[in-house]
Amino acid sequence: MVTAPSIPSPTVRDTHRSTLAPLVVPDRLLLGPGPSNAHPQVIAAMNHQPLGHLDPDYLAMMDEVQELLRYTWQTDHELTYAIAGTGSAAMEATLANAIEPGDRVLVAVKGYFGHRLVNMAQRYGAEVVTIQKPWGEAFTLEEITAALKTHQPAVMAIVHAETSTGVRQPLEGVGAACREQGCLLVVDTVTSLGGVPIFLDDWQVDLAYSCSQKGLSCAPGISPFTMGPRAVEKLERRAKPVANWYLDAALLRQYWGSARVYHHTAPINLTYALREALRLLAEEGLEARWQRHQSTAEYLWAGLAELGLSCHVPQEFRLPTLTTVRVPDGVDAKAVGRQLLTEHNIEVGGGLGELAGRVWRIGLMGHNSDPQHVDTLLQALKTVLD
Amino acid sequence: MVTAPSIPSPTVRDTHRSTLAPLVVPDRLLLGPGPSNAHPQVIAAMNHQPLGHLDPDYLAMMDEVQELLRYTWQTDHELTYAIAGTGSAAMEATLANAIEPGDRVLVAVKGYFGHRLVNMAQRYGAEVVTIQKPWGEAFTLEEITAALKTHQPAVMAIVHAETSTGVRQPLEGVGAACREQGCLLVVDTVTSLGGVPIFLDDWQVDLAYSCSQKGLSCAPGISPFTMGPRAVEKLERRAKPVANWYLDAALLRQYWGSARVYHHTAPINLTYALREALRLLAEEGLEARWQRHQSTAEYLWAGLAELGLSCHVPQEFRLPTLTTVRVPDGVDAKAVGRQLLTEHNIEVGGGLGELAGRVWRIGLMGHNSDPQHVDTLLQALKTVLD
Repeated sequence: MVTAPSIPSPTVRDTHRSTLAPLVVPDRLLLGPGPSNAHPQVIAAMNHQPLGHLDPDYLAMMDEVQELLRYTWQTDHELTYAIAGTGSAAMEATLANAIEPGDRVLVAVKGYFGHRLVNMAQRYGAEVVTIQKPWGEAFTLEEITAALKTHQPAVMAIVHAETSTGVRQPLEGVGAACREQGCLLVVDTVTSLGGVPIFLDDWQVDLAYSCSQKGLSCAPGISPFTMGPRAVEKLERRAKPVANWYLDAALLRQYWGSARVYHHTAPINLTYALREALRLLAEEGLEARWQRHQSTAEYLWAGLAELGLSCHVPQEFRLPTLTTVRVPDGVDAKAVGRQLLTEHNIEVGGGLGELAGRVWRIGLMGHNSDPQHVDTLLQALKTVLD
Repeated sequence: MVTAPSIPSPTVRDTHRSTLAPLVVPDRLLLGPGPSNAHPQVIAAMNHQPLGHLDPDYLAMMDEVQELLRYTWQTDHELTYAIAGTGSAAMEATLANAIEPGDRVLVAVKGYFGHRLVNMAQRYGAEVVTIQKPWGEAFTLEEITAALKTHQPAVMAIVHAETSTGVRQPLEGVGAACREQGCLLVVDTVTSLGGVPIFLDDWQVDLAYSCSQKGLSCAPGISPFTMGPRAVEKLERRAKPVANWYLDAALLRQYWGSARVYHHTAPINLTYALREALRLLAEEGLEARWQRHQSTAEYLWAGLAELGLSCHVPQEFRLPTLTTVRVPDGVDAKAVGRQLLTEHNIEVGGGLGELAGRVWRIGLMGHNSDPQHVDTLLQALKTVLD
């Protein structure tokens, strides 16, 4: 009998063998653009051993997650599931599954994440055309309809809640305009799902994606994805497979559907977390949850005004989940952020791209949408700015 | 002042609003091909609120993870980090970053995951050529060298620990042969990292990937990735960007490196878990850990022989982390697996592809590599088979 060598010939080097202390995580109030704090029950749900990804108990949990995602998005889309990655992976999944090389894709860009859609779509071989708006504004339906007529794209992509600007993009009528032109509509709901009214089917959205760590109050690393029948039809007609194996909906639907064909190992503990986050959301109910986000945001806006601070976005298009606050002249935005973090354990976000140094981004999402947190933040902000 | 509407025009439908009971997770002993049970301290590490992905405390943790991954893989590669997805995402990351469209890629296929490499590489525009072995055998260095000479590929990919067959592929000399032909070497270490001797730099491996939920005893959803200087050079010479935004190392290196440029939200709680898993591994030490895996596996093999069961792979090439056991004639492999799960709360894996119905796959990985678990399994197996 051959005995496997216990220790092979090269010697183990201890060069990178750091000796670490056990993990210490500071207690932060996360009021930036995300991640937000997770609901304590969501964190507790992760605190179990993994199950196998084909365990009957796990498969049942997957069905529950799918069903509650449909409720949260207000859609009947059968292909509604969670991507094993953060929100950007789900963003990439919508584009990878919607785009065939050579497709013309129209992206409505009004902030950082619109640009990301452009960059990603190009990598999938799309001929990308854009319409653009200054960072802080929304498109009108007329502008979108005109661009659809001019460019006649195969896919149109737009961000519902632009995390870089705090703008809520009205979507009424956009889906109908896309259908009139025979194109698919992709919508980014990363900063709206679970906090801002969304009616995916009423709005005739074909593909959408989100993240877990904002309006859903879950830990990051697992991300909602949905794809309606028109998008599935295009997927089934493809000449070449999706140019991304991990995110290929043609394969993933065989795992999330009744066939249960193994695709890749699922992020089991994050599924526990997402299931709990969605359960809590369904318990609260969408109307109550949206109302809570709206009134907490209004409370913040009033408090900011009292401090003499102004919001970057007109109230009509302002997101309840994420507020961009103008940095007063002469104030070092970064220094304020650092002081809030180190002296008050509060995280707020800085500006991105065009708005770098010009705004702070304040998120009140999911469990964190609570007037008590607004009080804590305003008090700290007052201290720091004084 | 315009007041945002509290509740918009469509009515919320309660169609998919399931009422769920709080989460109940059964207590399974996971002795299949993965996930394995996580170390209890790893589960406890997840049990904290998220931090922001640019929080100084989180950035420090990223450095710690990188350093300990270098130790675990025995590499000095600067570009060593964790992918925000499961092992297949890290597999896709190595191919996406190594392959340019039109590159010839040689894949040594000796099981299911070799075929997956072929499928993925094709999606990145590679001209794929393969060498093949029956499921249960390993390649010789001569076979690999001959194929490299014949095909002169730009990239060669091979699985170190084939999860579908239980074969350990010897890698001594393969890296040198690749360098002689001027090609990059990609190695799958999904079922070896943390349980089977690996010397990435001694073996001259250019890119490698793994998962968290096997030899590292972490929860799934975050995955080790590493890329050496020759691969980085090829990346920097690319004419077109990597055909995958989420996994693009040219962007991710700016976040994991000193520039700290935001790429995408990290799976924060899984980073806590991975850091703890790697900390425990470094505390134990690689030699001790490899030795533990080897002797626990030998204990299993002896016990299986006592039950009259035989292993599919010759001992010389048998993985200590994953054993394929031949299903005796007349025994229903699936029924046995189901009975182990439902009556004994033990998960073992079934066969994949060519080995479907012909083997069980028994994993003894990370924290689960423990003779007590072997006793529990053998006892249950005896009861079920009797």
